[in-house]
Amino acid sequence: MKKSNSSDPAALPAIGGPADVKALEPEQLPLLADEIRSVLIDSLSRTGGHLGPNLGVVELCIALHRVFDSPKDKFLFDVSHQGYVHKMLTGRWGEIGTIRQYGGLNGFLLRTESEHDCYGAGHAGTALSAALGMVAARNLKGGDEHVVAVAGDAAFTCGPTFEALNNIASHRGPFIVVLNDNEWSIDKNVGAIARYFNKITTSKTYSGLHDAAANFVEKIMGKGARRIAAKVEEGAKNVIVPSVIFEEFGLRYHGPIDGHDLPLLVKTFEFLKEQKDPVILHIITEKGRGYEPALEKPDKFHGLGKYKIETGETDGTSTPTYSQLYGSTMVDLAKADPKVAAITAAMPGGTGLSVFRDDEAVRDRYFDVGIAEEHAALFACGLATQGVKPFLAIYSTFMQRAFDMLVHDVGIQDLPVRLCMDRAGLSGDDGPTHHGLFDIGYLRHIPNFVFMQPKDEEEFVDMLHTMAAYDDGPIAVRYPRGVGTGAQPKARPERLEIGRAEVLSSGGDVALIGLGHLFSMAEETRDRLEADGHSTSLINPRFIKPLDSDAIARAAREAKVVCTFEDHVLHNGFGAAVIELLHDLGVATPVVRIGWPDEFVEHGNIPALREKHGLSADAAVAKITYALGEPAPVRDTAKLAGTR
Amino acid sequence: MKKSNSSDPAALPAIGGPADVKALEPEQLPLLADEIRSVLIDSLSRTGGHLGPNLGVVELCIALHRVFDSPKDKFLFDVSHQGYVHKMLTGRWGEIGTIRQYGGLNGFLLRTESEHDCYGAGHAGTALSAALGMVAARNLKGGDEHVVAVAGDAAFTCGPTFEALNNIASHRGPFIVVLNDNEWSIDKNVGAIARYFNKITTSKTYSGLHDAAANFVEKIMGKGARRIAAKVEEGAKNVIVPSVIFEEFGLRYHGPIDGHDLPLLVKTFEFLKEQKDPVILHIITEKGRGYEPALEKPDKFHGLGKYKIETGETDGTSTPTYSQLYGSTMVDLAKADPKVAAITAAMPGGTGLSVFRDDEAVRDRYFDVGIAEEHAALFACGLATQGVKPFLAIYSTFMQRAFDMLVHDVGIQDLPVRLCMDRAGLSGDDGPTHHGLFDIGYLRHIPNFVFMQPKDEEEFVDMLHTMAAYDDGPIAVRYPRGVGTGAQPKARPERLEIGRAEVLSSGGDVALIGLGHLFSMAEETRDRLEADGHSTSLINPRFIKPLDSDAIARAAREAKVVCTFEDHVLHNGFGAAVIELLHDLGVATPVVRIGWPDEFVEHGNIPALREKHGLSADAAVAKITYALGEPAPVRDTAKLAGTR
Repeated sequence: MKKSNSSDPAALPAIGGPADVKALEPEQLPLLADEIRSVLIDSLSRTGGHLGPNLGVVELCIALHRVFDSPKDKFLFDVSHQGYVHKMLTGRWGEIGTIRQYGGLNGFLLRTESEHDCYGAGHAGTALSAALGMVAARNLKGGDEHVVAVAGDAAFTCGPTFEALNNIASHRGPFIVVLNDNEWSIDKNVGAIARYFNKITTSKTYSGLHDAAANFVEKIMGKGARRIAAKVEEGAKNVIVPSVIFEEFGLRYHGPIDGHDLPLLVKTFEFLKEQKDPVILHIITEKGRGYEPALEKPDKFHGLGKYKIETGETDGTSTPTYSQLYGSTMVDLAKADPKVAAITAAMPGGTGLSVFRDDEAVRDRYFDVGIAEEHAALFACGLATQGVKPFLAIYSTFMQRAFDMLVHDVGIQDLPVRLCMDRAGLSGDDGPTHHGLFDIGYLRHIPNFVFMQPKDEEEFVDMLHTMAAYDDGPIAVRYPRGVGTGAQPKARPERLEIGRAEVLSSGGDVALIGLGHLFSMAEETRDRLEADGHSTSLINPRFIKPLDSDAIARAAREAKVVCTFEDHVLHNGFGAAVIELLHDLGVATPVVRIGWPDEFVEHGNIPALREKHGLSADAAVAKITYALGEPAPVRDTAKLAGTR
Repeated sequence: MKKSNSSDPAALPAIGGPADVKALEPEQLPLLADEIRSVLIDSLSRTGGHLGPNLGVVELCIALHRVFDSPKDKFLFDVSHQGYVHKMLTGRWGEIGTIRQYGGLNGFLLRTESEHDCYGAGHAGTALSAALGMVAARNLKGGDEHVVAVAGDAAFTCGPTFEALNNIASHRGPFIVVLNDNEWSIDKNVGAIARYFNKITTSKTYSGLHDAAANFVEKIMGKGARRIAAKVEEGAKNVIVPSVIFEEFGLRYHGPIDGHDLPLLVKTFEFLKEQKDPVILHIITEKGRGYEPALEKPDKFHGLGKYKIETGETDGTSTPTYSQLYGSTMVDLAKADPKVAAITAAMPGGTGLSVFRDDEAVRDRYFDVGIAEEHAALFACGLATQGVKPFLAIYSTFMQRAFDMLVHDVGIQDLPVRLCMDRAGLSGDDGPTHHGLFDIGYLRHIPNFVFMQPKDEEEFVDMLHTMAAYDDGPIAVRYPRGVGTGAQPKARPERLEIGRAEVLSSGGDVALIGLGHLFSMAEETRDRLEADGHSTSLINPRFIKPLDSDAIARAAREAKVVCTFEDHVLHNGFGAAVIELLHDLGVATPVVRIGWPDEFVEHGNIPALREKHGLSADAAVAKITYALGEPAPVRDTAKLAGTR
């Protein structure tokens, strides 16, 4: 738990936990902040991670641990990608180099990782509600612990945050909300709330300043504070004005203050700690503070892979990712068809749509609605009722937020909304909050949906063209993070026949059905089996729904064993659908399944996790051989059982 | 399409559509309003329905159809249970007596029912977002149609409504939001927004009145309007004040005005129709207006069954419903264990929790969070982290709103949150937006959950006691609307063993597995089969997850046919889980399944819908006999195929 430069004579003592933060002299705190930034910039250059957000909350986290007592006092971080500093200050400094690595620290807070992580997250907008639950529990038990929820300004575009705000006034006693305002979610924030925050921070009026806030300013900053406040850095950034909206919600508003002024933060929290009712502190921070490349490109440095410290350059790949192909294909489709529109929920970069946003020919059909997946889906429904063709690009895991709309609005009304579920399958180093392993389960049983998954990039573009032409009802496609086989899209993409699988070979003893990007694993399995003298059939199902029952049943009837491959949990998954189909058709051929077990899969690199959980051609060959009644080539039967 | 008293000489002409509303003389409009109320009170006394909300919007709907041109202009009604009047004015007057009846009008708006129903609903908080999609589509196409979203004050406790508000300012051109403020959702509204609306309507200040609104007042009400406005009925109800919150969201605020003053409504909409930017009109209405019993008990008359017109009395049943048992059992559990807490999302009546709310011994552990299912689930998580035992009672269909929280917060963190999913299975006359037919599909594949369904009321209470004692992680129970067999709960309810089915009989040729309240259908099937000379086994599975694989596999191995029964769609359902289990265990016994097909089931009475879709002992016997290889006793093989 030593810090990297502990041999330096000017160095700070090692920070083994919050007590060490409290033990520092006040003048050492800025050194600690510098040290943390230095470690983060250095360490994340090797591992990747959410650099920008963490550089922005260094002083905030120091101040919190200086003033409050974790784990008794509770800190909740919305999304919690900005939790690295908190991890460093709570006994995990020495492990920060393992962040997001297989077996290392998770990139988000995790209750199982530390007693200081009182609430885990990964999706936005959950902190205020969960914190309010802790406040209510404290009140019921007569406790005196403090609850502090830290939420970025982007969290205030989320429905759940507003639902929480609407309930705060129902609870008595201390509760501190910190609005960490950096004007960014991942991309630049949109919408009225973002404008409102900007208005607060640039207002020069004091006319409505209430007494408590006035006293607060004077207490902290001296009698001349009102005059001074208007003059501090960035013009009006530090002006303190009352916020009508928050006050209506029962939160006494304080701020905005400079979120990088450590003495001010500490004094402010000492003041807020004494308040008996809910308060909100509005702080202004810089995403990427202290690292020039991150300040210049806050969107890129929100979360990224390895980079060169000197320049911030990252390794580029010449192969476009699925997301990049999505963006460029959407531009093509929109140029060819004036009805095509693109919707994103605060993810123009992540979904590949920034090229759509930046293209003058189509940008009027680009809609970034903020982190608001429910609204995004409903807005798409409204467009679809009027003959517009909305494509809704949302990561599989975030689409969960819109689930009710998929049933109640898209499904029941049978509207031709196009769902484009990026990051379907294991997301890898982001971990369980980001894995897209549940979407077949939550979507296949909703009536009216067509549901596809491409085996490679070429087919992905074909599917997007198919979706643009399909007006009969809801249609969805799931596709993975990153690159696939790199198969070049056709110059003239092809429209696929709905419900028709691609049969690569037939008549074999083993029928291999590889869904989506795991088709390549089915191919590898085929090669291995053929080398062992088995005959195989190979199917790319393309459609999760409707299943190509003819092709699948034919292959199964001819085979002794069927093997399905999917990047999804096995329960309610693709293989389960195949079993159900074959059973109902009276085809008795056994089906072995490759997919994820009934547990939340940890973070790490995808190959390691696939290996651990038996998603491999090796495991497939072993299971198939066992099912064929031949001697199993591996002894690890526990692994076979685990992926049943 | 004739009105009921068209022989009356003073009668209005028949209203066949919006043109007929426009053709009336202004002085006939109040007669039309009276007539509509009279028809509603009379007709709904025989069918049941959402009487209170519809009595509150009579003048509003008349004014809308008077001023705007549906279907060119779009009216969206949030939840749309208040759509009866709109239906009557758009060609469905003569069918209003069929509302919610099998084959009759749906109780909500439905795009397939009329071109005037531009957007369907059933869940709250969707109208503003969908309307905004229509506004965006209009702007893209250069159209000039008006879009009017009507939302109750309760919709403003929903996250999606706020997400929509945050996006309104991104769109140009006319858009009218009508805030229909009656201080009620189904029960009395809670939270800051409700208080805020109340503050607006009781404020006496004009100091911030902006010019447009001032001109508006004068234009409509004359030069003395500002003075007069403060004096009109109900004290300050008609005062016009600017609303800071809405203005921040980019909505020019008008109101509040009396929502029962027809001339005022008409003039106001004529004024608003000329506005070039988004506006919100705040109207104050009375739920149940014009019918004394409904005014006295607005919660009861929100939606109800048949009643006596004179008194408003409804038929009572002495058998408590599942929901009533839930409420009384929760009180018992909370009195026995100070950690037990109850959460509802604006449904104390519907979920049975009003007795909990009203019991002084436990009411401090009662939390009504408003129509805010996402917050409700997160709040429960916060409580659970602190050792409180939260029971979250939400209808199965509304729990869809919290799906992401079930995965991301409850599931991943393995928190002992108790999900109590009322109205699981077919809801009946409310129709597809309210059927709880998807929850096994959306929950069974989420790791860490225990998931139960009771065969009767006695077992339901046992399960609630089991949940109170279970602290190992998430646990859910699904149970139906209304009453079951009426089985009396035990004096000392029993804690069930997790994952253990109840095996009623074993060793038969036909293994019948009846989940939850369809266990009685399994019993009826058993009786029929035994009478035909077949031997049967009978299992009450109790647990959807973990399945009792031993009991089910044993019965299946001994049998020639297995038959499962579930009040859920077959895809990703309970029977599918049994098929998956047996397949993986190598048990080849065929499984026939009774459950709902892969389509959205219409509204109607449950027996008729079960009959139509093959959920009956008849259908089960036919399928089982067919599977046994014996001559099928029915010829309707299409029906068999339909429920595959």
